[in-house]
Amino acid sequence: MELDSSNQDKNSRSCDCIKAIPGKFKAKVVEFTEKTKKIGQDDPRRIAHSAKVGLALTLVSFFYYFRPLYDGFGQAGMWAILTVVVVFEYTVGGTLLKCFNRGFATLLAGALGIGAEYLATLCGEKGEPVLLGILVFILATTSTFMRFFPSIKRRYDYGVLIFILTFSLVAVSGFRVNQIIQLAHQRLSTILIGAATCIVISIFICPVWAGQDLHNLASANIEKLANFLQVFGDEGSVVAPKDVKSFLHGYKTVLNAKATEESLANFACWEPCHGRFKFHHPWKQYLKIGVLVRECCCHIEALSGYRNSKPQVPSEFSIKIHQLCVKISLESGKSLNDLAAAIKNMVHPCATETHIKNSIAAANELKSILESSSSLAKPDLQEIMPALVVASILIDIIKCIEKISESIHELSGKAHFKNNANSTITPEKQQQKQWLHRGIVKPINDANCDHVAIEILGTCEDNSSEK
Amino acid sequence: MELDSSNQDKNSRSCDCIKAIPGKFKAKVVEFTEKTKKIGQDDPRRIAHSAKVGLALTLVSFFYYFRPLYDGFGQAGMWAILTVVVVFEYTVGGTLLKCFNRGFATLLAGALGIGAEYLATLCGEKGEPVLLGILVFILATTSTFMRFFPSIKRRYDYGVLIFILTFSLVAVSGFRVNQIIQLAHQRLSTILIGAATCIVISIFICPVWAGQDLHNLASANIEKLANFLQVFGDEGSVVAPKDVKSFLHGYKTVLNAKATEESLANFACWEPCHGRFKFHHPWKQYLKIGVLVRECCCHIEALSGYRNSKPQVPSEFSIKIHQLCVKISLESGKSLNDLAAAIKNMVHPCATETHIKNSIAAANELKSILESSSSLAKPDLQEIMPALVVASILIDIIKCIEKISESIHELSGKAHFKNNANSTITPEKQQQKQWLHRGIVKPINDANCDHVAIEILGTCEDNSSEK
Repeated sequence: MELDSSNQDKNSRSCDCIKAIPGKFKAKVVEFTEKTKKIGQDDPRRIAHSAKVGLALTLVSFFYYFRPLYDGFGQAGMWAILTVVVVFEYTVGGTLLKCFNRGFATLLAGALGIGAEYLATLCGEKGEPVLLGILVFILATTSTFMRFFPSIKRRYDYGVLIFILTFSLVAVSGFRVNQIIQLAHQRLSTILIGAATCIVISIFICPVWAGQDLHNLASANIEKLANFLQVFGDEGSVVAPKDVKSFLHGYKTVLNAKATEESLANFACWEPCHGRFKFHHPWKQYLKIGVLVRECCCHIEALSGYRNSKPQVPSEFSIKIHQLCVKISLESGKSLNDLAAAIKNMVHPCATETHIKNSIAAANELKSILESSSSLAKPDLQEIMPALVVASILIDIIKCIEKISESIHELSGKAHFKNNANSTITPEKQQQKQWLHRGIVKPINDANCDHVAIEILGTCEDNSSEK
Repeated sequence: MELDSSNQDKNSRSCDCIKAIPGKFKAKVVEFTEKTKKIGQDDPRRIAHSAKVGLALTLVSFFYYFRPLYDGFGQAGMWAILTVVVVFEYTVGGTLLKCFNRGFATLLAGALGIGAEYLATLCGEKGEPVLLGILVFILATTSTFMRFFPSIKRRYDYGVLIFILTFSLVAVSGFRVNQIIQLAHQRLSTILIGAATCIVISIFICPVWAGQDLHNLASANIEKLANFLQVFGDEGSVVAPKDVKSFLHGYKTVLNAKATEESLANFACWEPCHGRFKFHHPWKQYLKIGVLVRECCCHIEALSGYRNSKPQVPSEFSIKIHQLCVKISLESGKSLNDLAAAIKNMVHPCATETHIKNSIAAANELKSILESSSSLAKPDLQEIMPALVVASILIDIIKCIEKISESIHELSGKAHFKNNANSTITPEKQQQKQWLHRGIVKPINDANCDHVAIEILGTCEDNSSEK
């Protein structure tokens, strides 16, 4: 009986194991399905892109498969497939850049290869392999070294790779020159077919424009900073509670956006005009804005440690400072939101200046309170220190926002953003400008802030008078 | 005469133009030469890498060139060249990862391709191209979608590309199955020859280890932060004046190191044990340290605006605060320098705790001064505000350094760093520990700081008792 029960025990245990394996497998499958769903939902264009690659490959493989075409192109048909697989990128600009790289590098390396082959035949049967070996070594070495140049790495890395490959293949193939020219013709025409298929499909079926993505990214990043500042200032009344966390932590991704921005800007240069973007859209300006946004983001990271740093039993003095900080934070957030909306809608951001002016006014008020603090009761430094630090960081943030605003005004000028209906200089605006000039005469101790604010107004005015 | 002179004028102008072209060309050549020199001098391993690629390509092209070998491998010899060009990366880990990707993807896709071909022949002559087209479409689409998974993108992106390519080529080639197997044999053996050449050359001739680079990068980044803090605190006496600028701006590159760190850690996992690194070296821990270092770097960016913010006519009170800030900054810099040296020399960083303790003590002193400020003469807030902000940011930096130190202690434990001669628990250390415990009982208002400091001491002790 005992033996029996232990056997049963073993059986049931091994049964459990067998049951556990499908259980684990099922869990893995469920997890995988959910991940796949999420990636597809995050950006449905990914599904479209995958189908586009499948379509291009199927179309091109028919060139290779059907005999009449096959007989025409020979084995070279495989180069069409190779081209599609390697050249088809997610964005139109990426695909165009790779096509250009592949085409240009193949032509150049092919010509040089034929030259090398011709030179080598002059050296006799023994000298030929030696000379070819030396030439391949020299060209491969110098080209590989070229890939370390940042400017070449960024744009022509793939081209240099294809250059080395084609030169080696052509130089070493050992065919006579006339054979090579026939081969080159076949190979180039199949590469052209592959590249043309990729370009047509990537432009005309659900195109993904790198320029559009870069534009949206710039706007979204500024919006993330704005969200943080608005939640930081307001502590929950503007934003639904469930969004607070995502609003507070959204800015963290901004710090790592540099690589994405640079590659998008690189691709965007190669795209034809599309949507609201002309051919010579100032893509480089987005990189300048990106640098300033990340700088601002660092100050926000420093600020994030001071959320909920309100003292337990606040004095009248620290309540005053706190209120002004809230005002600066909210107004800064609004100005950034305006800038983000201006980029998004491609409208000249003239509403921003009011918010920047409001936050500068609050900052100046803060300064005058600190100046007059000697007339107050002795403040408890330990108690007001966090508020002072927050105020100081917020003043730094205002300076950053002014720089960002200036840079977006520059973008607006270069890219001919539309002028908003209320961006022309109304009498009210004139008065505001005078108000600001008065601000300089008034002994407020921040010449730098006012100076930049006036510069911004100046740019705004210049642009509207230009049109 | 007039006509003549104007003609002469024109001639001399065109002469100038002709002279200007070689002048410009010369300037370009000089600029290019200097750039090349700089890239080579910055990292001489780049020159070695370029020569290694040239050598590998020359060796492999002989397989293709010499007739006896050529007859053995046929046209497949070109796959050896293609493999070398595409697979040879700068680091050993990168090369190994690509070789693995290429080999595994080729085998898998080849087997699936033969299966697809066999299945298609069963469908008759009319059904064959349709079924193959459908199969290519489905496989290319799903594989391309896979490339959007971050985990696959990071490691197997190249493998998925080769998988799509090989499957399409094999499925569509239109050969009979027995022909395909012969072709596959040729192609695989040439790919193996190419990959083996790359691996042997990249490991045995001036190897560039991704692991070593990651290790050095982690140490160098921490050193950059240390340099900033030491210059910020000391204003020039430690550092030679010509280095001040590079010391102050060095930290800016740290913020953008994320992508480099991630790719190096990815490659390092694939490297065999080398130098002082075992096979299971905890490479992921470097990424954790990197995150904390960048967080600290953000605070330093916020701090950098306050250099030279010493008031013109400082009161006794603000001089005191300034002195303590200098002390915190210098001690923090020293502790970071110690941590950087610990990573560099792979030694357990037990000397760091003293510096962290010193900076915590200075921070506590600062706090008690602020607490007792009510007994002093009324401070001018406007005057002392920058000093307060600097103090506050420095306290944040201490917290960051504690986290970095903890994380490096973890690394030290996992990677079995050597114990320094003076890291065993001496009676003096015991006393220090008691001092710190007393610190908690003493009503100093920063439980968090002391807590972490004790945790660090604890780790230190645990590690030394383990060995």
